[in-house]
Amino acid sequence: MITNLENILSDSAKGMKRSVIRELLKLTQRPDIISFAGGLPAPSTFPIEELKQISNEVLEEEGSSALQYGQTEGETHLREILLERYQKIGLNISIDNISILTSSQQGLDLAGKIFINRGDKIICGLPSYLGGLGAFSNYGAIPVGIKFDEFGMRSDLLEVSLSKLEAANDLPKFIYVIPDFQNPAGITMPEWRRLEIINIAKKYNILIIEDSPYRELRFEGESQRMMYDLDNSGQVICLGTFSKIFVPGFRIGWVIAHEAILDKFVKAKQSTDLCTSPFVQKIAARYLEKGLFDKNLKNIIKMYHRKRDVMLEAFEEFMPKGVKWTKPEGGLFLFLILPEDMDAEDLFEIAIKKNVAFVLGSVFHCDGSGKNTMRINFSYMDEDQNRIGVQRLAESIQTLLNNKCLTV
Amino acid sequence: MITNLENILSDSAKGMKRSVIRELLKLTQRPDIISFAGGLPAPSTFPIEELKQISNEVLEEEGSSALQYGQTEGETHLREILLERYQKIGLNISIDNISILTSSQQGLDLAGKIFINRGDKIICGLPSYLGGLGAFSNYGAIPVGIKFDEFGMRSDLLEVSLSKLEAANDLPKFIYVIPDFQNPAGITMPEWRRLEIINIAKKYNILIIEDSPYRELRFEGESQRMMYDLDNSGQVICLGTFSKIFVPGFRIGWVIAHEAILDKFVKAKQSTDLCTSPFVQKIAARYLEKGLFDKNLKNIIKMYHRKRDVMLEAFEEFMPKGVKWTKPEGGLFLFLILPEDMDAEDLFEIAIKKNVAFVLGSVFHCDGSGKNTMRINFSYMDEDQNRIGVQRLAESIQTLLNNKCLTV
Repeated sequence: MITNLENILSDSAKGMKRSVIRELLKLTQRPDIISFAGGLPAPSTFPIEELKQISNEVLEEEGSSALQYGQTEGETHLREILLERYQKIGLNISIDNISILTSSQQGLDLAGKIFINRGDKIICGLPSYLGGLGAFSNYGAIPVGIKFDEFGMRSDLLEVSLSKLEAANDLPKFIYVIPDFQNPAGITMPEWRRLEIINIAKKYNILIIEDSPYRELRFEGESQRMMYDLDNSGQVICLGTFSKIFVPGFRIGWVIAHEAILDKFVKAKQSTDLCTSPFVQKIAARYLEKGLFDKNLKNIIKMYHRKRDVMLEAFEEFMPKGVKWTKPEGGLFLFLILPEDMDAEDLFEIAIKKNVAFVLGSVFHCDGSGKNTMRINFSYMDEDQNRIGVQRLAESIQTLLNNKCLTV
Repeated sequence: MITNLENILSDSAKGMKRSVIRELLKLTQRPDIISFAGGLPAPSTFPIEELKQISNEVLEEEGSSALQYGQTEGETHLREILLERYQKIGLNISIDNISILTSSQQGLDLAGKIFINRGDKIICGLPSYLGGLGAFSNYGAIPVGIKFDEFGMRSDLLEVSLSKLEAANDLPKFIYVIPDFQNPAGITMPEWRRLEIINIAKKYNILIIEDSPYRELRFEGESQRMMYDLDNSGQVICLGTFSKIFVPGFRIGWVIAHEAILDKFVKAKQSTDLCTSPFVQKIAARYLEKGLFDKNLKNIIKMYHRKRDVMLEAFEEFMPKGVKWTKPEGGLFLFLILPEDMDAEDLFEIAIKKNVAFVLGSVFHCDGSGKNTMRINFSYMDEDQNRIGVQRLAESIQTLLNNKCLTV
């Protein structure tokens, strides 16, 4: 073995940490634990029978091309189907604006590769998806966090930050946002806030990355137009994925972008994995074409809606005074906010003893803030577990509050 | 659209080119063209019927986990099967030394991410696999090419280069080699040459990346021990893949490395695509477990052996004097070498008109040399096409020779 491994690592690798969440998930896989920690879809939503049938069809009818190398841009059939879905909701795009990725996480990685030089700034939310922050920081990005209000990223603070950065000749490469049912906060940006952010991005001539894994999981309320659509000048790069609305196990995502930008994604993807598996792309394309996707999506929405309701009701019933939570209109997550002086890390130890787990909100804050916040997933556990888990969590919080009173 | 796209690109993206080969492949997909240009396995080797059966089994028996997110390290079952295969041929490794990747190309990309800072040197062969060079250069690596002889990378020249680089305090991060049936040259390093290179790497305390996609495709001659095995101190990182020995369409590769290095690969992979599709991993694991893989591999070897023989015979029969070629004992490629003063680019134009295609050898040379060389794939076309294609190629070369005589 070489004797200087730590010395020869790239600057990126020196800073790489294993994802807190993924490591945590390993801890919380004990069967007696009710885990709100993961971001997993409910496996009961996976259309196993239909996929058996379709896998057979794909191998029977186009096995040779399904098992061969494919185009870096992705399977044309799947791209056309996705294109049509986006055109239906108003996006003015062509096939040249959409390319398949090996998960939308790959899109975050490629965005880092394409835009970031070591030391470049990027804008993200406080809080923001950890996997996005990790992908960008692996290219040496320095995140500048913008605080949230109930409508998502605060545009007034964004404007202040950008004007300062411009003065320092250090404008960020892009603004990273998850406008719908944000991970981790569960907040959806209304259209007027989206427009404010787009206008600021235009003013400073910087890109927006619209990470959109949950958009189709709306339980109630009005759908808000995509930022890609609201802009429609090509200033927004949109990332999509099947992971939360179909199956994660296929690792299929996609990027929608201006032709000139898409070209960079395709070039960068070539040396990253050459192409995404044509086999799973062809299965997905047929699944969508048969109308099975939309039918299943309705069921997923119904199921997660109920799970969220059970959870919100349990919060109302069990939570001690002073604890707050977001009320997402869709998606997989909500944010639980403890009184300001409490630390979710202290709570975690108590909660794990009571067999309930969550993710510390602080890991989603690039500035280390949010110590009193927690991400709660409501999609993976069943309704009963959601209720019992919240009860345990409430008891844990009460224990922590009591301990605090004792110490004071 | 932002007005300064070219300005905000990372230094990497500014240098990114679409892969010459993949773009070329699009040109050569006309059905009347006999293409020796690609690196595709023959689709008739894909075990479609067996995979139908196994896909059904996987979905039937473990559908929920196959379609869910998986571990970043890969499916344990598949890792164990691969482990056992490598242990059988002598590698002293455990499960903690092997991790699944989304194609071995991902391994090249991650190696870049883990080890390369912009401006770092890496050592590669003259010639070398283009996808490796592309992956490394996307992280700002500067390749230092080492000439080949009939035994692969010349160790004497390697030593000279490293001693110069050491004097300049600019030692490369690693030596990139494909020891078995090298792409593009078709050359296999004998064990003594492997040992020479390992010893030099040890002397200078630098890593070796052993890219090994073709190793199991040996038609004849003695198997040479893997560099990972010959070293067995953890100085070698080995990359493997199913693409050439099973199916490329699953995009499954793997990395074998010292635990400390493997840990870096897992961390880097987390923010790249979270995990490789558990669905295709589970199918592959069962396919191997049932013994179908080894049976099929024998057939692949037999088929490619015949195809190579037909091609070599056609070379003997048709090639004008002065044209040379390598005689690989396995793999997918051989190298055709024109007389020194000829340029394969001139030949390409003539050849395409005669409906035969190949890849310019110069694209595999990081220093732009090798203008009189060509990479020829013998696995994709059928035996007749191999023969007819060589005949057309020989005629094209004769035409070019005649033209040359006319000009002189």
